Amino acid sequence: MKLIELYAKMKKDITYIEKELERSIDSEHALLREASLHLLKAGGKRIRPVFVLLGAKFGHYDLEQIKHIAVPLELIHMASLVHDDVIDDASTRRGQKTVRSKWDNRIAMHTGDYIFAKALTVVTKLPNATIHQIMSKAIVEMSIGEMEQIRFFFNTEQTLRDYLLRIKRKTALLIAISCQLGAITAGAEDDLSMRLYRFGYNVGMAFQIRDDLLDLCGSEKEIGKPPGSDIRQGNITVPIIFALQQPELRDVLLEQMQQIKEADGQTDISTFIKLIRSSEGIRRSEQLASSYIDKAIAALQGLPDIQAKKDFVGVAHFIGNRSY
Amino acid sequence: MKLIELYAKMKKDITYIEKELERSIDSEHALLREASLHLLKAGGKRIRPVFVLLGAKFGHYDLEQIKHIAVPLELIHMASLVHDDVIDDASTRRGQKTVRSKWDNRIAMHTGDYIFAKALTVVTKLPNATIHQIMSKAIVEMSIGEMEQIRFFFNTEQTLRDYLLRIKRKTALLIAISCQLGAITAGAEDDLSMRLYRFGYNVGMAFQIRDDLLDLCGSEKEIGKPPGSDIRQGNITVPIIFALQQPELRDVLLEQMQQIKEADGQTDISTFIKLIRSSEGIRRSEQLASSYIDKAIAALQGLPDIQAKKDFVGVAHFIGNRSY
Repeated sequence: MKLIELYAKMKKDITYIEKELERSIDSEHALLREASLHLLKAGGKRIRPVFVLLGAKFGHYDLEQIKHIAVPLELIHMASLVHDDVIDDASTRRGQKTVRSKWDNRIAMHTGDYIFAKALTVVTKLPNATIHQIMSKAIVEMSIGEMEQIRFFFNTEQTLRDYLLRIKRKTALLIAISCQLGAITAGAEDDLSMRLYRFGYNVGMAFQIRDDLLDLCGSEKEIGKPPGSDIRQGNITVPIIFALQQPELRDVLLEQMQQIKEADGQTDISTFIKLIRSSEGIRRSEQLASSYIDKAIAALQGLPDIQAKKDFVGVAHFIGNRSY
Repeated sequence: MKLIELYAKMKKDITYIEKELERSIDSEHALLREASLHLLKAGGKRIRPVFVLLGAKFGHYDLEQIKHIAVPLELIHMASLVHDDVIDDASTRRGQKTVRSKWDNRIAMHTGDYIFAKALTVVTKLPNATIHQIMSKAIVEMSIGEMEQIRFFFNTEQTLRDYLLRIKRKTALLIAISCQLGAITAGAEDDLSMRLYRFGYNVGMAFQIRDDLLDLCGSEKEIGKPPGSDIRQGNITVPIIFALQQPELRDVLLEQMQQIKEADGQTDISTFIKLIRSSEGIRRSEQLASSYIDKAIAALQGLPDIQAKKDFVGVAHFIGNRSY
């Protein structure tokens, strides 16, 4: 199944969530409204709300309740993006100007804080304390992940384990709890919501690995920004970690990265990109992503055979095969 | 009563909250722990926890419950400070290096996000949904207040009303809900917690006006940074708004502020400071702060005559008479 078919099937509910997202960040404050809407309209795949909706199909599906968790999870994702852009000095994302380049860093930071606070007000509509606990713990882990990313910038001694823990915090956890909290909000049992958590975690890991591959192997048109922006800012991703394990490549890669670091990312990185693209790092990273997809699908075993289960499998395969 | 006497009397509970604050931001992540602790150890008056504790005296005082609201409210305040310092390019606060000058802006932003997220995990220990709703709404307003502050930088046409709404969001609301949520957590009735909200709101307004007076009239030793840092960054506070209403001062003040703006704050502001200090803006601002203190004390009428009520009055008078 193509992702677009799933979206077409769920169109009515996704459109409703989209409207609720817009409504949630509405503000009498013109600049906040404008900056938040700019961010919202820049799009995105809305993976988190889609996973919430699918997760909720395993319980009592009531969109009026589920929106109170689908909306905040996407808002939290958006808030973390706008704060990332402040940090990264990023000027484009998904081919659109970022908030910090359209306005400035201060406005981007406060917009992030505002969207984040709005996320909290929406989720307080749900009385279940477990939901708030799961969500707040994930947010703590996410902020640790952001800090870890900085700590490991240009650290060429980092291990695969360091990388995996980082992307778990940065990406996989929020996707995992999207599946889980969709189910919990719909009143599904613990065993079921835990399986969905594991599904989401593994899909999230594959998703980030694919994203990191895309940054190195994609064209500017596909990525929405020039390739290699991760390494320019010092973010050493898994294809590079694998490539560094090839003795014949290691020294030249280290030398290249030293140059990139010294130039603060402002240098020609085409040689570096070519070396990585021709390394075993690509194939091994693809294999790693595939193994996470396998684990994700395995986690669904034992769940009732409803359409949402097939849809989850479809999304997982789509993410596993993301082209770049 | 002096504030120090109140602190001495409450020492045991304040010390306990202080330890819980430290515990709450503990992290296996060394840099986050260090940056958060640095911020915590820089001190502050812990006005918000003190108000929570006093508010809780009007209900069933159980420190093990109350800490779950006293700690997050102080953490939210801390998180907003560290984000403010990113925005302000501030290098010292309370005479201590700020997180962003000791480390960098990225680390300061993520530390703020982390402390904020930790605040949320603590408050989820309380099952009462009303508490979460009141808190999240106040956080939204705070973030709007931060944005408003930027919008009004160097805006010499702003009114007293603009200023008052801004400090309500920036300062008074969090102090108001500290009193209110202390009482609610202790199971006090709505009428009582609303009176405490009004008390806290009025004290908070006076507190910020006094703080803004201090920035203009205090010595570097008293403030912990050179006087006039507000106007250097474009923050036009109430003494200046009043001074601008004096026809004989208006033109020269406008000219001075234009120069400060053009120099991006990096110019000699001693003439400007002298003009404000000798204007009616000081006396009128003091009167305004006093009128808020009167309203705060009036809000306490009808509350049971317990020691905490006398302590609230004492704190209000202390804030009303803050020297500079």
